[in-house]
Amino acid sequence: MEDHPHRRFNALTGEWVLVSPHRAKRPWQGQIEKSEQEKRPEYDPGCYLCPGNERAGGYLNPKYDSTFVFVNDFSALMEKSPAGSEKDGELFQAESESGICKVICFSPRHDLTIPQMEVDAIRKVVDLWCDEYRQIGAEPFIHYVQIFENKGSMMGCSNPHPHGQIWASSSMPVEPMKEQSRQSDYYNRHGRALLTDYVEAEVKKKSRVVFENEHFVALVPYWAVWPFETMLAPKRRVANLLELTDAEKQSFAAAYRELTIIYDNLFEVSFPYSAGIHQAPTDGKDHPEWHLHMHFYPPLLRSATVKKFMVGYEMLANAQRDITPETSAARLREQSRVHYSQR
Amino acid sequence: MEDHPHRRFNALTGEWVLVSPHRAKRPWQGQIEKSEQEKRPEYDPGCYLCPGNERAGGYLNPKYDSTFVFVNDFSALMEKSPAGSEKDGELFQAESESGICKVICFSPRHDLTIPQMEVDAIRKVVDLWCDEYRQIGAEPFIHYVQIFENKGSMMGCSNPHPHGQIWASSSMPVEPMKEQSRQSDYYNRHGRALLTDYVEAEVKKKSRVVFENEHFVALVPYWAVWPFETMLAPKRRVANLLELTDAEKQSFAAAYRELTIIYDNLFEVSFPYSAGIHQAPTDGKDHPEWHLHMHFYPPLLRSATVKKFMVGYEMLANAQRDITPETSAARLREQSRVHYSQR
Ligand SMILES: O=P(O)(O)O[C@H]1O[C@H](CO)[C@@H](O)[C@H](O)[C@H]1O
Ligand SMILES: O=P(O)(O)O[C@H]1O[C@H](CO)[C@@H](O)[C@H](O)[C@H]1O
Repeated sequence: MEDHPHRRFNALTGEWVLVSPHRAKRPWQGQIEKSEQEKRPEYDPGCYLCPGNERAGGYLNPKYDSTFVFVNDFSALMEKSPAGSEKDGELFQAESESGICKVICFSPRHDLTIPQMEVDAIRKVVDLWCDEYRQIGAEPFIHYVQIFENKGSMMGCSNPHPHGQIWASSSMPVEPMKEQSRQSDYYNRHGRALLTDYVEAEVKKKSRVVFENEHFVALVPYWAVWPFETMLAPKRRVANLLELTDAEKQSFAAAYRELTIIYDNLFEVSFPYSAGIHQAPTDGKDHPEWHLHMHFYPPLLRSATVKKFMVGYEMLANAQRDITPETSAARLREQSRVHYSQR
Repeated sequence: MEDHPHRRFNALTGEWVLVSPHRAKRPWQGQIEKSEQEKRPEYDPGCYLCPGNERAGGYLNPKYDSTFVFVNDFSALMEKSPAGSEKDGELFQAESESGICKVICFSPRHDLTIPQMEVDAIRKVVDLWCDEYRQIGAEPFIHYVQIFENKGSMMGCSNPHPHGQIWASSSMPVEPMKEQSRQSDYYNRHGRALLTDYVEAEVKKKSRVVFENEHFVALVPYWAVWPFETMLAPKRRVANLLELTDAEKQSFAAAYRELTIIYDNLFEVSFPYSAGIHQAPTDGKDHPEWHLHMHFYPPLLRSATVKKFMVGYEMLANAQRDITPETSAARLREQSRVHYSQR
């Protein structure tokens, strides 16, 4: 079956992905992306994320020397959204939505990216995620905290200064909700977490594992949609960031670095992606069904300039991929762990 | 609520979209797309879709003078996929998938697009869709026929020659499946089709209607995700293309043309989009719950070169839009019905 069109079930969302392995051979005559090879200065006076610079609305960044977090100047969600809802039969339903949007600078250095940072510096990012998840999650009106990173202009990132975002909301967003209901269902039937069983099985099977360290594993999910999509997950079940031990946080930082070095080395380019952490909602309940994990969704397909377009069939009908997850995992596995810029 | 962050329920899929109207004001410093203004020749000797030219594998196109359909030379789905499935517990499940992929040339003219074609020429495209839906749908192993068009290199379209595609499969893809279950549920409770009620309500409300003709209406759905997303639907319920009368097919062609002229006029550019028809599956059953419709998903947000990126939060958490569907509908409504190139 491996070499022929087939579909695979995503146990985490309940959706299917169409795999067309034979199609990897088709020639590409479509759009070519700009490759992002520019050299950046350590400090850019025109960057609104660099230390000491001015942001929108006249705010001044502190002269921070590791990480820095602030409320997004163009928040999609706001703390004080007037309450209310609209309901006209079952076809027209809307609800007011409140939330908090923040921006996290990973480093004062404008020219770095995660794979070029030291593990200890990345560890500070992990620690900040923990603090923010704790603090934002403690707000009574917040029920889900989405931490994510858009990297590269191909991913709509409007500033190359290394940074991520947090969008926290009063309702549970669509994607984590799918995972929540699948995980609950599995837990109710087995008394175990779906992803704990999944991660254990993958570590044994090995074919989709990119690498492991003491506490984390990086793998290409059986049901991956993007050509080089991966998941980073702790081997032990933790429902959220706050349950990670000190040693696990260190392993998380090391794995985040190793995975992004591998990505950069694949096409010798600063690899664009959207990545983000899925974890238990902050609704005050216990979540024994949740197993924290981080998804990486990179768009590149064949080279630094040819990406996979999720259009037409994918938007209207079904996610579709050309190379198998096993082939992708093998290609990622064989990459050097030294960043290409250092060789 | 209109002016504040809120979420709206998509009655057709059961998912929610986050609307952040206040956010339309943020400045854009991100990626700028190439605008697609090039003049093309009527015939391009290097185009594999032009009449009389050679395609991959040495196939020769006929000297067609209206539409032309052929089996995709790089089909993602194939008729004779070896049967089989994989099942290792509930976490690893795959099934072989069979199908048919075709390409439809809309016109022999390399330089045209739908909004530049005459209604009678577009009518031939509608007729071809009908023929193909009938013929492919009659294959016992095909249960769903997805007709779609990717327009513009921004949408992964690798050839500007006006064309669309058909991907037909033995299983029901994820997106139509969501609509199927919502429509069935509604039909079971009301004895009426969800979209028939919805279209009637929108025609009365008017605020999201872009235009109507005798048999069709173009509207921005209450739950639209893309900035200028629209839906084209017949006013009368038909489950599939084969139930359209001759007059309705003519209205469909006219509406397809009018909508794409409006799109091109919005930013005076050949407007990129993915569009496609959702209709009843070809499973031999009656589908009184289905109301055929065509979705248009265009990526542009503010101008010919600034698009909406569905990344980060959207991929990991929830679809999000900045301008309200009502504002988008108003902007589309006010566009001229004469193509900007003719003025
Ligand atoms: O078949 P094409 O036009 O070469 O390819 C395009 O449409 C397909 C179907 O929507 C997508 O899977 C591809 O990613 C896209 O590039
Ligand atoms: O907030 P930013 O980085 O300006 O904006 C980017 O990320 C957001 C969250 O994923 C998206 O909604 C925007 O489309 C994207 O351009």
